[in-house]
Amino acid sequence: MISKAILKEFQKIVGKEKVLATEAATMSYSYDGFLDKPVKPDVVVQPQQDEQISKLVFLCQKLEMPMTIRGSGSNLSGGAIPVKNGCVISTSAMNKIKQIDYTDMYAVVQPGVITKTLADNVERNGFFYPPDPSSMSISTLGGNVAENAGGLRGLKYGVTKDYVMGMTFIDSDGNTVKTGGKTVKQASGFNLSGFMVGSEGSFGLITEIILKITPRPAASRAMTVDFDDLNKASQSVADIIAAKVLPATMEILDNYTIRSVEAATSIGLPVDAQAILFIELDGHPAHVDDDFAIVQKICKKNSGNIKIARSESEKNKLWQGRRKALSSLARVKPTLILEDATVPRSKIPDMMKKIQSISKKFNISIGTFGHAGDGNLHPTILTDRRNPEEMKRVEKAIDEIFDAALELDGTLSGEHGVGIAKARYLEKELGKGTILFMKKLKKGLDEKNLLNPGKVGL
Amino acid sequence: MISKAILKEFQKIVGKEKVLATEAATMSYSYDGFLDKPVKPDVVVQPQQDEQISKLVFLCQKLEMPMTIRGSGSNLSGGAIPVKNGCVISTSAMNKIKQIDYTDMYAVVQPGVITKTLADNVERNGFFYPPDPSSMSISTLGGNVAENAGGLRGLKYGVTKDYVMGMTFIDSDGNTVKTGGKTVKQASGFNLSGFMVGSEGSFGLITEIILKITPRPAASRAMTVDFDDLNKASQSVADIIAAKVLPATMEILDNYTIRSVEAATSIGLPVDAQAILFIELDGHPAHVDDDFAIVQKICKKNSGNIKIARSESEKNKLWQGRRKALSSLARVKPTLILEDATVPRSKIPDMMKKIQSISKKFNISIGTFGHAGDGNLHPTILTDRRNPEEMKRVEKAIDEIFDAALELDGTLSGEHGVGIAKARYLEKELGKGTILFMKKLKKGLDEKNLLNPGKVGL
Repeated sequence: MISKAILKEFQKIVGKEKVLATEAATMSYSYDGFLDKPVKPDVVVQPQQDEQISKLVFLCQKLEMPMTIRGSGSNLSGGAIPVKNGCVISTSAMNKIKQIDYTDMYAVVQPGVITKTLADNVERNGFFYPPDPSSMSISTLGGNVAENAGGLRGLKYGVTKDYVMGMTFIDSDGNTVKTGGKTVKQASGFNLSGFMVGSEGSFGLITEIILKITPRPAASRAMTVDFDDLNKASQSVADIIAAKVLPATMEILDNYTIRSVEAATSIGLPVDAQAILFIELDGHPAHVDDDFAIVQKICKKNSGNIKIARSESEKNKLWQGRRKALSSLARVKPTLILEDATVPRSKIPDMMKKIQSISKKFNISIGTFGHAGDGNLHPTILTDRRNPEEMKRVEKAIDEIFDAALELDGTLSGEHGVGIAKARYLEKELGKGTILFMKKLKKGLDEKNLLNPGKVGL
Repeated sequence: MISKAILKEFQKIVGKEKVLATEAATMSYSYDGFLDKPVKPDVVVQPQQDEQISKLVFLCQKLEMPMTIRGSGSNLSGGAIPVKNGCVISTSAMNKIKQIDYTDMYAVVQPGVITKTLADNVERNGFFYPPDPSSMSISTLGGNVAENAGGLRGLKYGVTKDYVMGMTFIDSDGNTVKTGGKTVKQASGFNLSGFMVGSEGSFGLITEIILKITPRPAASRAMTVDFDDLNKASQSVADIIAAKVLPATMEILDNYTIRSVEAATSIGLPVDAQAILFIELDGHPAHVDDDFAIVQKICKKNSGNIKIARSESEKNKLWQGRRKALSSLARVKPTLILEDATVPRSKIPDMMKKIQSISKKFNISIGTFGHAGDGNLHPTILTDRRNPEEMKRVEKAIDEIFDAALELDGTLSGEHGVGIAKARYLEKELGKGTILFMKKLKKGLDEKNLLNPGKVGL
């Protein structure tokens, strides 16, 4: 329990109503999208200005109190929750879009802006902010940057790091650090924007972000393709990429996921299909036509059954199946473990096969869906934490999924980050030298390890 | 002078013929594309294997000897030359393309590979490596990464950092650090690839780079546009961007540069033109047609005179004027000072006017050319270092050029980096907090300051 005197110090900085320390408040800030043993923070603060964040850092340094910065808490790897009590700094009250420049194509935002708010804003003006994590209607842009969030459009448009032009952040000493800017090219000083993207709150507290926006593609065409064979579906993904077509999105659902979604939603998915692809092409109208002809030919060859959306509302209807995947799987069993193993795109067929054989080998339920086009699959294990015997098999299965991804030149995490969830696997992928380098970085920039300690293995 | 015993230690690591210590050799490694007072290294080594680089780092640590890693030395800000003697580690013998994967669209290269070698290689197979610094026929990919090199295609295709998927480097302790990989999405561990891009040799010695390649655009159209008014030329640039056309390249030459190029080359440039734009559109054929119609309309409105290249060889002929800009300006006066100030694209007209008025105010010759489309101008001062009175005016002019760029929300350097050349201006752009953060980074990762000391103000 935090003392009244210390609470007062926090209140002096951000105002009384922006300091939360009740049991209920601290409890709710002990969770994010990753389910682990919750550790309640001592205090939650909601600063409204950059200067308040500087002052909070000075205070926490004085108290030697850990600081965990938090957006909406939609994080899937435990990046937004404390592991050592301390202070949670919420960005919820720093949610202003400060500027959108359509001529020079950038937006300046505070970290607490909801991803979809920015996306909708620029879309109304004929522009486009491509990164679209599935959580975008609740996730914050600050959280997206801290986790280098991906999404459905990674294949063609890249991920959050590809849209960060610059930022301002407060470091562990309370200093203001400015990096990048509003120009397309910038080579003055280190690429600290690149460094901060995906750093999971380890090196500073972001107060402002400059994001690139682009003109909206002139045309798009969306479709679903049902397959009676999973291998034929994943082969179609590889064939489409090999034909140099870059769809804006190319998502996959396996049969287990299809049946789970249909059971939960009754939206009329073909429950006998072994896989469904969700494909959207965009760009110049003539380019979309040409690409569509290629996609059609490849899917036909692989015995896929194409349904084209004739309108935006038809697309939204078809896309329901993809959007409901995670929530539908979550209904199947008490515990859901969402993985994020990613392979080079051409290895999707191999990886799908591996996941199926791992599921059989350990006799556990895995529904696989995800961003097939960029190799980023979400094998999702449905289990029950209260069954220790099954949990042992689950752990072995996870190890084998990771091993399979690494053997195929892939990675443990495509877009969810390391946080608490994957820290113990990190050395396997990156090697000892990398871990040592990360530790030197942390030591040099946050000597007392007060910035989101316990994350990324640090 | 370095002792024979120490030389022997270097020879033991890389072989006798790969250690250079003669007066002539060390002299030639004391220069790069930035002209400053040369400092000769004690020794130059040309390792061939990653393990040799590790061993060199161990040796230099033992001797407390500074290490400067060097590609082809085409650097324009002094990043590749020592300021404290020590050891120059040349990557010239590490010049293998290890793998090109056209299905998953990446290339794995050693740092000493010449940029154009990779670009030509992938082009022959219908692919495209977009970053094209003007020095690409001699520059190395390792150097491009260390300096975050730009080029003519920055506007549409971005710069080197947008193509680095992963890398391996040796840190100051000789440890091997691996970051990123071969997948489009990767979120396991910090974005150390982003961190290393543009770090100018300050944090490690790159031994392997994984670079993204993309399918080659199906069509392109190149043209030059002459204007009788500089403002109308720069207004055309701003109008084209505002019309949401993204040319692959959009370069500008002012009248001073045009006359200098024509005097040097007699290639038939219109010497009365106040500016020439060099524009190339690429993409799907129908998209190129549509974009061309817009560009044509805008240039006509601004009284520009368009010449279209009907073939690749005609394009190369027209493009000569742009390619010869720097070398032609270098003939005008004994000393050339190439600046790299960059502004948001819409501010190009303002910046061009500012540069003209600064030239008049201080009565100095400035030829301006550069990447108008991405706001990255190269105002080039022609002067004579032996004239101290003029040099004083030159220094004041440079200060005012930087001030103008910063006032217009721009940056000191778009693509040449900081190195020795711009270190003293850095705090003005980034602020004290950023400089302190950079120092903490350096201290944490290279305690004795042996990795390319004296660069980026460190």
